[in-house]
Amino acid sequence: MNLKDYIASVADFPKEGILFRDITPLMLNGKAYKYASDEFTTFAKEQEATLIVGPEARGFIFGCPVSVNLGIGFAPVRKPGKLPREAQSVTYDLEYGTNTLSIHKDAIKKGDRVLIIDDLLATGGTVEATISLVESLGGIVVGLAFLIELEELNGRDKIKQYPVKALMKY
Amino acid sequence: MNLKDYIASVADFPKEGILFRDITPLMLNGKAYKYASDEFTTFAKEQEATLIVGPEARGFIFGCPVSVNLGIGFAPVRKPGKLPREAQSVTYDLEYGTNTLSIHKDAIKKGDRVLIIDDLLATGGTVEATISLVESLGGIVVGLAFLIELEELNGRDKIKQYPVKALMKY
Repeated sequence: MNLKDYIASVADFPKEGILFRDITPLMLNGKAYKYASDEFTTFAKEQEATLIVGPEARGFIFGCPVSVNLGIGFAPVRKPGKLPREAQSVTYDLEYGTNTLSIHKDAIKKGDRVLIIDDLLATGGTVEATISLVESLGGIVVGLAFLIELEELNGRDKIKQYPVKALMKY
Repeated sequence: MNLKDYIASVADFPKEGILFRDITPLMLNGKAYKYASDEFTTFAKEQEATLIVGPEARGFIFGCPVSVNLGIGFAPVRKPGKLPREAQSVTYDLEYGTNTLSIHKDAIKKGDRVLIIDDLLATGGTVEATISLVESLGGIVVGLAFLIELEELNGRDKIKQYPVKALMKY
């Protein structure tokens, strides 16, 4: 199956000069969505993951089905003010300004084998922040999985020491 | 399985006087997460759903696994500025102010049998808005599924004409 058949490329979104890769047609096609989820599930098994972690909201799109497929837990990484109990937070730089992400402190137990799943690898800022949250709580990051990698943004440079799976590259 | 064993009740979140039902312990327990997802999957089959719709971000948590379980599509309902192509929007009242939700116009085809899944039925404003989006595009809402129903908020009064499944009630 050629997953790129199910990606809509939208010019100038969210701002001029950006070619946005829209994954909603893939999700709308049950066979394509299941195919991509199964690929991630296989990778999670290969890496012997015991926990899936995904940043909101689009990290939930593939991370949650993989958790349920394998019957292992899912820990959400969320924006400030969303998690009600004691959380670990990290702030990182964006092109303009900063972003903060949080995870519940009891979401990761020491030695958990964590696969991080997100829809997109762009500059790598989000995944780098997510890795730091997992590792600061004693988790072992056993892999990083993305539906799409935007190669020209060189996100891989930030994550060289981890096994990476990207189902599509642009 | 008693799913309530996996819900953390947090006083005064997000503001004083609110008892927040935190579903993250349930997601963290692979067996409980799979059990709840399987219950929703069974309901989707019973209602002969051909499409799952869920509002971001927590509607993705159960909606996405059910889609993948059944090999049917998932259409995300999102906040303004997140969907890159032509979208249908609806604005509804909150206790203070308003909220707007959107769905891609091509996400629903006339006659699609739609199951709407979210984590929580509270006052029913979000699900009512989601129903209106689906129906305005020609979809048939065949059911509404929630992990938790807060009965004292009377959300059911807004959705009397639809089959409803709630896995837990408080």
